[in-house]
Parts: sequence; structure tokens; C-alpha cells
Amino acid sequence: MPIVTIEITREGTEPGQHSITREQKAKLIEGASKLMLDVLNKPLGSTFVIIEEVDLDNWGWGGLPVAEYRKRLKSGF
Amino acid sequence: MPIVTIEITREGTEPGQHSITREQKAKLIEGASKLMLDVLNKPLGSTFVIIEEVDLDNWGWGGLPVAEYRKRLKSGF
Amino acid sequence: MPIVTIEITREGTEPGQHSITREQKAKLIEGASKLMLDVLNKPLGSTFVIIEEVDLDNWGWGGLPVAEYRKRLKSGF
Amino acid sequence: MPIVTIEITREGTEPGQHSITREQKAKLIEGASKLMLDVLNKPLGSTFVIIEEVDLDNWGWGGLPVAEYRKRLKSGF
Amino acid sequence: MPIVTIEITREGTEPGQHSITREQKAKLIEGASKLMLDVLNKPLGSTFVIIEEVDLDNWGWGGLPVAEYRKRLKSGF
Amino acid sequence: MPIVTIEITREGTEPGQHSITREQKAKLIEGASKLMLDVLNKPLGSTFVIIEEVDLDNWGWGGLPVAEYRKRLKSGF
Repeated sequence: MPIVTIEITREGTEPGQHSITREQKAKLIEGASKLMLDVLNKPLGSTFVIIEEVDLDNWGWGGLPVAEYRKRLKSGF
Repeated sequence: MPIVTIEITREGTEPGQHSITREQKAKLIEGASKLMLDVLNKPLGSTFVIIEEVDLDNWGWGGLPVAEYRKRLKSGF
Repeated sequence: MPIVTIEITREGTEPGQHSITREQKAKLIEGASKLMLDVLNKPLGSTFVIIEEVDLDNWGWGGLPVAEYRKRLKSGF
Repeated sequence: MPIVTIEITREGTEPGQHSITREQKAKLIEGASKLMLDVLNKPLGSTFVIIEEVDLDNWGWGGLPVAEYRKRLKSGF
Repeated sequence: MPIVTIEITREGTEPGQHSITREQKAKLIEGASKLMLDVLNKPLGSTFVIIEEVDLDNWGWGGLPVAEYRKRLKSGF
Repeated sequence: MPIVTIEITREGTEPGQHSITREQKAKLIEGASKLMLDVLNKPLGSTFVIIEEVDLDNWGWGGLPVAEYRKRLKSGF
């Protein structure tokens, strides 16, 4: 009966994408569920996986909105 | 001061509905708050209830996106 | 497939109790699950209920640890 | 490596606003991250801040949807 | 910067164990982090994994505390 | 009515401490509550702060249990 909650920023992994694709979501669900089965022997049918997508402005890292923090990391500040 | 968080899939309970109605949300809030009052004597005024609606593609069950898993359950796979 | 998470302070409802009883937990589980069934027609077998107990020092209200805030509320500050 | 999750209702602080502004979000991120640094000496670069905005209908208080509860508080019921 | 939260019941996978082992926890952390890397190309160094262990009395399923529900499932009620 | 949840590893900030002190918890509660007041004008009396302490073995970073990851960071792997 595990519950796996995956929080990610709402952005794609390819240029022009605004969020991850249905296929990627399905892979995350499959992978997280299989991990519970493989490591803890929890049946797939009793595992929930929840994907929470968070707008970039709503995710902070390094004291800054993440988009701003990434810019600074790139500029080696 | 309980906090009750209710995570549900973003879908209606009637054909053609894309999510639960305002009335249903109000019933969930009332019911969850009264449960805290009845069982733990927590005043309504110090109980928060949060309803989180999750897109169907973002909820996994049985290692699959839930819509797909429901199809398989129905087909008795 | 709802998930209902109930966060409460780790304290009893009767003098001398340090946390709620097993019976109270069972009533919270039953009540929350039935609420999902009654309002949203979600089968009991696909509803998870999680009770999270939080130490009093770890719960803040009114800018204070809750035990301190309650004292002030009582003293009508 | 703290994670600070801030749940708020999706509403603005000024008339006509439907949610808080980007600047306010940046201030919440900065303030929460600095708090971890000041009190627990946790570096900004290892602190995540997540802002979750909840629709008014999805937030319950006093056994009612929050907008309804506020009306009653104002009317001194 | 994903955050993966894994909620499981506090029990072992072998007789006599009261919770999962450190090795199992490390495998869950490794597996969940690699999943983010493989599917979403998220670097390991920016992924947090949190394992939350919940007492059996605090986890409800089928309207019952989970230990009780398992008994009924076994007895084919 | 914000809810601020602070997840931290269960460790002290001084040698020999196994978790943060009551005073530090009170500072986190005060600081998080004042942040909501200052930035969003949310009254202290309608803000909850929850501090969740997570065992070191239960917190993963860089694909490893955090204590192990810190060792590697120090050794400049």
C-alpha cells in the first residue's frame, strides 16, 4: 500500500514542451510502482503514484525562483 | 487544529462532469470537519480541510495511469 | 482512489492520554472512508486514510508553539 | 536540505487580483529560505520551497468552504 | 529538482522485522533518484527522496485499520 | 489560512544534539508565521506551521542516504 508522490516543476524535457508528456508520466508511474514491488514486494495493485506538477514561479531553490537560480548557476555567480 | 487533506482524481461522479461539483466539495468539507468534532472534539473553527484534485494522467495505480488500469480491471485481465 | 491524510497534534482527548486511542483512530479511518463512499461513491477498498500525529512542539499556531498559543487564548491576551 | 511547503488559497492580496504576484512568491521563497539559514544554518542552495495555491472552493474552514466561512465570521454569526 | 515522497507502513518484509532495513531504504532512494534521471534527465544531486513510515494503526484501507483489513481479505469476507 | 510545512532531517545544529531544540522550533514557527503576515497580510491566528523531522536514513540526496552523500561531497568524489 505505498503511496509515492513525485513533485516536479511544470516544464518539459524537450524545447517547446510546457510539461512532461503522457508517456513520461506513464514511465514514472510504472517505474515507481515496480520499485515498490522489487524492493518491498508490494503488489502493483496496492500502490498509488501521484505526480504533482508545480509552476516554475512556485518552486524556490537557493532563495530564488528556480528559473532565476538556474540563470545564476549558469553564470557561475 | 486538524488538517484534513483529501486527494482525489479530477473527474466527476456523473457522465459529462470533468470534476466534482461545488456542492460535493462543500459536503466533503462539512463531513471531514464534523468527523474531527465527533471523534476528537476538535472545534470546527480550528480545522482546515484541503481538497487536492489530481489529473487522471497524474494518478497511477497498478503500475499504470489510472484510466488504463480501470480498463484492464474491467476486462478482467 | 482517494487518499485522506489527517494531521493532528500528538495528544489525547482525555486527561493522562499522550495520544488518541486505537479505537479513535479506527473511527477516523471508518468515518473518512465512508465520507468518500457517501459523497463521491468511491469504494472503501480503493480509499487510503493516513493519520499523521505531530508533536505539540512541532505544531505552530498564532506564531507560537500550539501549547503556548492555547495558554494565551485562555488568558484572553 | 529543508523542504518548505507553503499552502495558500488562490487569491490576491489586492482587489481584482486572482492570485498572489510573482514578486510576492519570490519574497515567500526568499524569506522561507533565509529562515532556514538563520535558524538552522542550512545553506540556501540545499533548500527547496514549494508554493501550493488551492482554489477557494477546495479549502474548508469551520466546516464550510472558506469564502462562506469568512462571510459568517464578518456577520458575527 | 524532483522531490519523491514514499509513504509506507512501518513494518518489515521479513518475519520479526518491525520496519524495513537501512539497505532497503538505500535501494528505494537509489531507485527513485535513478528513475528521475532516466525518465526526466534530472541530476541525482538535485533530487530529494523522503521515506515516511506510518504505524499500522495509522493507515486505513477498506474503511478499517490495515491490519484488520488484511485479515478480512485473507478470510475472503 | 496558510499552512507552512517544514521538512528537515532529524539532527541537531550543534555537536551531540540529535534534533533541533524547542527554541529553534519556536523560532521557525514564529519566522514562518511572520513571513505570511508580512508578505501576504495573513493574520498569525489563521496560520498553521508544521515541522516534520525525518530520520537521516529516510532522507535521500544524490541517489544516496544523505549521510553517505555528505561524506562523498566532503571527499570531493
